[in-house]
Amino acid sequence: MTDQLPESLRWENQQLYLLDQRLLPHEIVYVAISSLPAAWEAINTLTVRGAPAIGIAAAYALAQSMKEVAAPAFTATLKKNAEYLKSARPTAVNLAWAVDTLVKSGLQNPDVAALIQQAKEIHRADIRLCENIGRHGSSLIKPGMNLLTHCNAGALAVSRHGTATAPMYHQHQRGVNFHVYVDETRPLYQGARLTAWELDRSGIPVTLICDNMAATLMARNKIDLVLVGTDRVTANGDVINKIGTLNLAVLCHHFNVPFYVACPSTTYDANTLAGEDVEIEERAADEIKQRHAADVTAFNPAFDVTPAQLVTGIITEQGIAHDARSLSELIARQSAPRGIQS
Amino acid sequence: MTDQLPESLRWENQQLYLLDQRLLPHEIVYVAISSLPAAWEAINTLTVRGAPAIGIAAAYALAQSMKEVAAPAFTATLKKNAEYLKSARPTAVNLAWAVDTLVKSGLQNPDVAALIQQAKEIHRADIRLCENIGRHGSSLIKPGMNLLTHCNAGALAVSRHGTATAPMYHQHQRGVNFHVYVDETRPLYQGARLTAWELDRSGIPVTLICDNMAATLMARNKIDLVLVGTDRVTANGDVINKIGTLNLAVLCHHFNVPFYVACPSTTYDANTLAGEDVEIEERAADEIKQRHAADVTAFNPAFDVTPAQLVTGIITEQGIAHDARSLSELIARQSAPRGIQS
Repeated sequence: MTDQLPESLRWENQQLYLLDQRLLPHEIVYVAISSLPAAWEAINTLTVRGAPAIGIAAAYALAQSMKEVAAPAFTATLKKNAEYLKSARPTAVNLAWAVDTLVKSGLQNPDVAALIQQAKEIHRADIRLCENIGRHGSSLIKPGMNLLTHCNAGALAVSRHGTATAPMYHQHQRGVNFHVYVDETRPLYQGARLTAWELDRSGIPVTLICDNMAATLMARNKIDLVLVGTDRVTANGDVINKIGTLNLAVLCHHFNVPFYVACPSTTYDANTLAGEDVEIEERAADEIKQRHAADVTAFNPAFDVTPAQLVTGIITEQGIAHDARSLSELIARQSAPRGIQS
Repeated sequence: MTDQLPESLRWENQQLYLLDQRLLPHEIVYVAISSLPAAWEAINTLTVRGAPAIGIAAAYALAQSMKEVAAPAFTATLKKNAEYLKSARPTAVNLAWAVDTLVKSGLQNPDVAALIQQAKEIHRADIRLCENIGRHGSSLIKPGMNLLTHCNAGALAVSRHGTATAPMYHQHQRGVNFHVYVDETRPLYQGARLTAWELDRSGIPVTLICDNMAATLMARNKIDLVLVGTDRVTANGDVINKIGTLNLAVLCHHFNVPFYVACPSTTYDANTLAGEDVEIEERAADEIKQRHAADVTAFNPAFDVTPAQLVTGIITEQGIAHDARSLSELIARQSAPRGIQS
């Protein structure tokens, strides 16, 4: 069903191609990434976006950057290029995780072909993760339900199926009827441009709303479930995700609506204790100041922190966790078979 | 201080002129309203907006529409024109109130000059109301505070000073330093286009945010007070205001931030029991669907209902009410000296 959607990235003829998500939904254009600075730029300016997709893109880009590097400089260059790529976006953990995975592999086996294999394995593993999130999360979506999602944790954000959307695609394929409200997600409209488009194109009924309309829908009992993705979940279960997610979690708490987060193990950060320890990227004021806006100061944090207490459950590829302890147990169970941390 | 702001409307040479607020902040253009359909259109399409300003504009437009009407048809035409104008926007109570005030006056004294006088008195009274709201609300704003407001309940929404902004202008004039975060207010950006502009132009420090960012500011203890206007307050104290207001009220409740509403007596609707009895205007989906958005269904309610329990206080021209009973007492005290309901 997500066959009807363009893939967020491709590896073809030893070269990384990124779907330019800034042009969606009106143009489907792939950009060839031919240098490391081009990859950095593409990640920084959101040509590619979505925590898992950024990680996969960075893995391919890092492997590709090592092609011409001679043996003596191999490990030093690998480390330097990795740090450079990680600086493109600080908040999502997948970027750092994917790049570090490649560095670890490269230190053991300083060989470009092996790095490319490792990047492909990260890519393949991501597809499996999403399928499993879809399977585990599908029990939450019952016939006739109205869901709400924010930003794009869809097929476009990852390799296929998406994270928050995986349970939706899973149920839709089984013929379950439900409807999804999509927050437009200011300032960059990932909901209006990407999520609304990919769900609609896949045959799932959607209604677009502005971010400030969720409260009135909940007050009218029109939302049965909120389902979002995440850029990082910390050890205590705090959820870092697109700005506006905390807003939804507070509304869910007030109106007694279940609030679920889809989190592949690659997005879990066992090394950071709590959300307050995560650097929240602040982006340019111009992203907010449309041509109509007054010329004043603007504040533009890209993410917010939803405390674990406001989260009903976290859907991983191993099952649904309802607290930080069960989350860490599920993720630990995951590490071995995934086989990409060796 | 609001002298530096253009007035939202003018009555000159027996003719109504409206500031076209759709062109702000980049162009300051007044439109001559030369017919009743033109007035209806201007109200419906938000050339003039803001509950009090709509009421004043409608009063002048109704008076003006009676100029050529011969005596035998006077009262029937007055009633017909009044109903027509009221249909331009259903939610704000000031429109109906101002038009009904003129009809009552016209039935007693079927004379155009008297109607125009009545419209002028509504206009003058509005300026006094705002001054008094500013005086009473000023005690809420203390040095160093960070405020948050939504939409435009500013000078542009009324005749002068604004409602929610009146306490801000009052304190700023007294040299009190404070800072205001302004919600951009999707879908029509009244915050970004109008409020940010008018506060900045008046010398008050402002920072523009997207509507989904208030939660993260509150979580960081960056908001001391939320102050908004209203399009209608019902007898039980429910507040109907621009979509997104309920969202802020829920956040304030969760994060323990005071939530105040500025409500002139002309915006109080004693005849409607509760918010659920008010017709909420739904506007065209195209207002949401930017050129970038996917071509899907959109839901676009212009207002939401904030239940009285989530409101810390309502600032009227007679003082601050903390419950529905004290609100109705303050408003009742108001009716006699206002002298526009005779």
